[in-house]
Amino acid sequence: MTYIDQLGASAKQSAKVIATLSTATKNKILVAVAEELLKSEEEILTANAKDLELACSKGKKPAYVDRLALTSERIIAMAEGVREIATASDPIGIIDTGWLHPKGMEIIQKRVPLGVIGMIFESRPNVTIDAAALAIKAGNAIILRGGSDAIYSNTMLKNIFVRAGIAAGMPPASVQLVEQTERAHVRELISLNNYIDVIIPRGGKGLKSFIIEHATVPVIETGAGNCHLYVEKSADLEKAYAIILNAKTQRPATCNTIETLLLDYELLVAFLPIIAQKLADAGVVLAVDLTCMEILNKHKIIAEHATSADYKTEYQALKITIVAVGGVEDAINHINTYGSGHSEAILTEKMAASDLFAQEVDASSVYINASTRFTDGAEFGFGGEIGISTQKLHARGPMGLRALTTYKYIIRGNGQIR
Amino acid sequence: MTYIDQLGASAKQSAKVIATLSTATKNKILVAVAEELLKSEEEILTANAKDLELACSKGKKPAYVDRLALTSERIIAMAEGVREIATASDPIGIIDTGWLHPKGMEIIQKRVPLGVIGMIFESRPNVTIDAAALAIKAGNAIILRGGSDAIYSNTMLKNIFVRAGIAAGMPPASVQLVEQTERAHVRELISLNNYIDVIIPRGGKGLKSFIIEHATVPVIETGAGNCHLYVEKSADLEKAYAIILNAKTQRPATCNTIETLLLDYELLVAFLPIIAQKLADAGVVLAVDLTCMEILNKHKIIAEHATSADYKTEYQALKITIVAVGGVEDAINHINTYGSGHSEAILTEKMAASDLFAQEVDASSVYINASTRFTDGAEFGFGGEIGISTQKLHARGPMGLRALTTYKYIIRGNGQIR
Repeated sequence: MTYIDQLGASAKQSAKVIATLSTATKNKILVAVAEELLKSEEEILTANAKDLELACSKGKKPAYVDRLALTSERIIAMAEGVREIATASDPIGIIDTGWLHPKGMEIIQKRVPLGVIGMIFESRPNVTIDAAALAIKAGNAIILRGGSDAIYSNTMLKNIFVRAGIAAGMPPASVQLVEQTERAHVRELISLNNYIDVIIPRGGKGLKSFIIEHATVPVIETGAGNCHLYVEKSADLEKAYAIILNAKTQRPATCNTIETLLLDYELLVAFLPIIAQKLADAGVVLAVDLTCMEILNKHKIIAEHATSADYKTEYQALKITIVAVGGVEDAINHINTYGSGHSEAILTEKMAASDLFAQEVDASSVYINASTRFTDGAEFGFGGEIGISTQKLHARGPMGLRALTTYKYIIRGNGQIR
Repeated sequence: MTYIDQLGASAKQSAKVIATLSTATKNKILVAVAEELLKSEEEILTANAKDLELACSKGKKPAYVDRLALTSERIIAMAEGVREIATASDPIGIIDTGWLHPKGMEIIQKRVPLGVIGMIFESRPNVTIDAAALAIKAGNAIILRGGSDAIYSNTMLKNIFVRAGIAAGMPPASVQLVEQTERAHVRELISLNNYIDVIIPRGGKGLKSFIIEHATVPVIETGAGNCHLYVEKSADLEKAYAIILNAKTQRPATCNTIETLLLDYELLVAFLPIIAQKLADAGVVLAVDLTCMEILNKHKIIAEHATSADYKTEYQALKITIVAVGGVEDAINHINTYGSGHSEAILTEKMAASDLFAQEVDASSVYINASTRFTDGAEFGFGGEIGISTQKLHARGPMGLRALTTYKYIIRGNGQIR
């Protein structure tokens, strides 16, 4: 048995036990973890300091180092997150539906845990705690594989989770971390069909395409966010300024941030210069099509020429593509061609336009007159989030506790045969 | 663009249109297909005769040839199946749930089509019609890839579906068949992530493991049925005889047939010889463990020695493994070790035993005092079945129309920002 096989086998054993834990026990485990996190600040910061030192010595960029860094505040936020998951309602045991078979058996469809979750992620060490807490609440075991740059932090956070969890009744191998950082382990993990029920990758494109290419365990793709906002000509323009700025600048590195602004031709003369100036003032770099460029030149607003490469790019930064379109159908067409199926918005006061947009845009979350920034498990009221699915199977959009469950049919009869 | 790329691109174009068809139009298409099938009996039988001739000349076994054969009766059954799908309720547009965000946006979760389905199957040509009808009713396009042995029949059935469908308002590329039989096309099809949303394989182990190994498009695994029936000591034995015979012999080649009978030790002396004789009388070959063998020897009932290879085998034939177990926990353990997560049954009059079994057995469908043969889309009232999922993501157990849908969130606001 290899190292990864051993993790898989013990996770599967533990999963059987966690699946039967009461809601009260699971909540007790989570509350204990939250408390232990707060008590262990010093240990966590010491471990994190080692990761930070290595990252700096490797010459990583400040933004990268910032994502890796843990602070007293971030530890408190992690503990709060775990407490919130403890208070969220238990998704297990819910009967989705039930009916009577014509021959008299009662058929019920009941929510049960998935089993063992494999979570492969990069950078942010808080994912260790968030993902483990969600997995446990939904009755699953989890095997975590974080980036090698966060190995000290991740190991420490996992150890804290496990020691507090075990003391509160958690089966030991419920939360495990791949502590050896060889890339080959990822390949082995994503082929562990005997033990792992689903792989959830969170990270950059390279990681995700590697996993989709090589996994034999089912994968849920998450977090590719090439999002658009289309301003239809009847839109309330005052609201439009606020929504666009929010959707682009409130937290530009997140996947629900817009990357392209689509403007109706009729809005080019009056609206474009104003929003372009507002975006520029907020530090946003503009990449615009030829039609928009002409207008911006007249107003001496600086912009780059947008290419079709821009249309496909998730900047995750203070940069936006602006494209003029001939109407709602044009906008839908652009979105369905270049979008990643994440979050798409229309600003309009016309029912026909909003209905067509909601019907035809192929995305997990379609917004009418609101910012795309709301696509988020906590905002949707899911008591946490393991990722945002951009595929269509199993779960779409923000994935909370329910996305970490499956169902079984239970059929009760008294001798029925077919 | 390759041949497969072209199929994918045109399917995706058509999918956009089918997604917007009204229920009435979709039903009209299906009724037209059913009528056209009945009218085209001669054409279908002529095409089928070519496949049968080739199969015979290749020396295929009679059971194989029988599965390939179409008859007047089977054509009527296909047409009936399509009509049933027409009368089933439309899964599209249903609002699963909805709520108000604290900032006042209305969030609804609405059922929408998956998009493009890739269906890869072997042998039975009726799958062409069944799968296409289910796909269309759920608003999807479908690309079919049948076995090369059924290529004439599949092509004819697809042509009939398409010509009747188009006349009734179906977009032309909604139903397509890979008409070239090179194996390389399968590999290309399962990597067509730009165009195909899900791959559903139906066929033997070889086909399924090839697809799971190589697919980058999400796959739903179907139809692996190593099912068990456990007779607990308190079971009503009269009912047990009937259920066991039904679960093993009613249609032994199906995936919901039992392959192993687990008997409580206390039932060995009185019950085992009787059920063994009944099974033998029904033509079932017995493969039994050492404990059972001793008893059967005394009664001069002929049986083979069961090996652990038998425990893992889906016979799909008139053969059964019989194993003695020490109680319900032993039975659950055997099932969770060797079962394929399909259908598992317990016969008992004790609540504690049935509750434990229903809780701990890890399978799509768990039966208490009923035959496993009911695991079937039509029996579950799903208006048809595209396969029986034995994985935990997306859909588990019989997959009907709803399994061919996903959802999107539609968020209506009036200027909300985060």
